Amino acid sequence: MRFSVKTKGFNDIIDITSRVSEIVRKSKTEDGICLIFCPGSTVGLTTIENDPNLLEDFKEFLEKIAPSNRSYHHDETWGDKNASGHIKSSLIKPFLTIPIEDGKLLLGTWQNVVLVDFDNRPRDRTIVIKIIKE
Amino acid sequence: MRFSVKTKGFNDIIDITSRVSEIVRKSKTEDGICLIFCPGSTVGLTTIENDPNLLEDFKEFLEKIAPSNRSYHHDETWGDKNASGHIKSSLIKPFLTIPIEDGKLLLGTWQNVVLVDFDNRPRDRTIVIKIIKE
Amino acid sequence: MRFSVKTKGFNDIIDITSRVSEIVRKSKTEDGICLIFCPGSTVGLTTIENDPNLLEDFKEFLEKIAPSNRSYHHDETWGDKNASGHIKSSLIKPFLTIPIEDGKLLLGTWQNVVLVDFDNRPRDRTIVIKIIKE
Repeated sequence: MRFSVKTKGFNDIIDITSRVSEIVRKSKTEDGICLIFCPGSTVGLTTIENDPNLLEDFKEFLEKIAPSNRSYHHDETWGDKNASGHIKSSLIKPFLTIPIEDGKLLLGTWQNVVLVDFDNRPRDRTIVIKIIKE
Repeated sequence: MRFSVKTKGFNDIIDITSRVSEIVRKSKTEDGICLIFCPGSTVGLTTIENDPNLLEDFKEFLEKIAPSNRSYHHDETWGDKNASGHIKSSLIKPFLTIPIEDGKLLLGTWQNVVLVDFDNRPRDRTIVIKIIKE
Repeated sequence: MRFSVKTKGFNDIIDITSRVSEIVRKSKTEDGICLIFCPGSTVGLTTIENDPNLLEDFKEFLEKIAPSNRSYHHDETWGDKNASGHIKSSLIKPFLTIPIEDGKLLLGTWQNVVLVDFDNRPRDRTIVIKIIKE
């Protein structure tokens, strides 16, 4: 199963919890694991509380440790100026695995599944879901 | 299968290797994968050598890149002052998947499974284990 | 299934995409998930575009946030001076899970699977692959 989202790039954070939950529900899997994967080398998947202030903090954290506004060796290869996005993607990684219990994704109360687009332009991203029964 | 641990918060690191190994042994799974997941948005799971000095280094590293003792936008939302804990959780993520071979978790000699509690207060944490046979 | 690679240590990055892909192909799995795991506490697995300039950027990023050339508490335990490598391993983690579709690893166009060896000496590393059919 898969679905697509449009992003604005530049650390845009998209909450995909309800989309993933819907796929889990339709799969009628009572118990198992759910792999969430986004093909790409400038994107990440993680969990976070969906508070706009916190999302801003997370973006500022990412920019602090891997700034977009400086030069990188990768600039000499392609000139697409998105090395910072690649680094963030290799750090956060574009996958998550979450348990399924009682037919539902098992998440904490404030825990949402998000895609973070680290590229420096708008992108269409495909999210691939694999469900394995226990 | 699941079990609980009590933490002190503030980057408290709890070694859960023996608890997870016991569940794997009791499952009588010869070959497969073991998902270890902790519901929550201020907690992480990773592997590390269980040397108290190294655990201290890891905590200092986390505090250096995402300091607790400063203000964050998230403070304006709830006032619970744990934005740094949320950021660390989104960075480290609260899950691990480890192979099972010959009925045992396949880990390196010095590699232990740990929960790190990034919240700023003691917490009860539930660890959920899903075992899938190959 | 498993295979070994020789590394130079010191953030040496080894592209293992073709080795993993070959194992997936030989497994004749049409649809499922592939866990890639490296036992060890000074090693990481992630995905990245295999551009030598970008790999250099990623190494510089890792050294900036967790420098090798300073002292750590862990030095007092063993004197093997590789605390920075342990920290990087706990941050990046030594596993990945990638979907299998149409009998192949599902990766982005520029997305390669790499092992990063954070230890401070050459190492032989074993990569363990577990394939689960959907």
